[in-house]
Amino acid sequence: MKRIFATTALAVALSFGAGISTAQDAAIEARQNLMQLQAFNLGQLGAMAKGEMPYDAEQAQVAADNLVALARLDQSAMWPEGSDSFATDKTRAKPAIWDNFSDLMEKDQALVEAAVAMQEIAGTDLDALRGRMEQVGKACGACHEDYREPKN
Amino acid sequence: MKRIFATTALAVALSFGAGISTAQDAAIEARQNLMQLQAFNLGQLGAMAKGEMPYDAEQAQVAADNLVALARLDQSAMWPEGSDSFATDKTRAKPAIWDNFSDLMEKDQALVEAAVAMQEIAGTDLDALRGRMEQVGKACGACHEDYREPKN
Repeated sequence: MKRIFATTALAVALSFGAGISTAQDAAIEARQNLMQLQAFNLGQLGAMAKGEMPYDAEQAQVAADNLVALARLDQSAMWPEGSDSFATDKTRAKPAIWDNFSDLMEKDQALVEAAVAMQEIAGTDLDALRGRMEQVGKACGACHEDYREPKN
Repeated sequence: MKRIFATTALAVALSFGAGISTAQDAAIEARQNLMQLQAFNLGQLGAMAKGEMPYDAEQAQVAADNLVALARLDQSAMWPEGSDSFATDKTRAKPAIWDNFSDLMEKDQALVEAAVAMQEIAGTDLDALRGRMEQVGKACGACHEDYREPKN
């Protein structure tokens, strides 16, 4: 997430003339798609860690590789100012996100580092994988706890 | 897409004991999330190409970089056998996908190459970007034409 603030030009242009709310909605959908893809891959690692799914070194490595690639995506276009939970019920993203840019960047970087740490050992064995799950989970949770509204 | 056939063990395990349909649904959602993220990024390049959005070299590069990273994700867990349009109305993926593995791999590789070609010049100028849009669009379309059911 190199630039979290999408430019106004971008936000307006993304609306394709259909009004600003469409651009906001597209950005909200994009980041939700991204988080769901991360959850899909992390879910496989978590299922192996919990013994709900047999450990498969190749599949664990694939999931961890995907997680790193996803964590490294540039999200700058996905977080236009105003695409928050005060503006629309399509997101639980708190307005505070846009007031805490440097904290967000740190938390984003922590997720990349946790994913890379997982990537390094996901294909080694189940114990190694288990040993690094917590770091990834905490990195996800760090943003969610501070910047996501509770579910209704 | 190194291995398009997710193992049965994976598909079963992903259901987390909630029945096979849940695993299929999770895989279908994951690939739809991926394609929507690709469309989000390609949409920005397309909007610039069509003059619906001002050309921004940095933003174009970000979108192209994202597109390459997304095209390179390993989709092996996203296409379990049986997650097709005959089995569920949650997908338009034709069963033929699972009978044409090598063709799918070729088409998948063509998308990676088209995205890389775009990445090389997206930040150069608008004419260069325009010149490589068609290759990306065709790569997307190649799979959709052969392997996606028409919209109802």
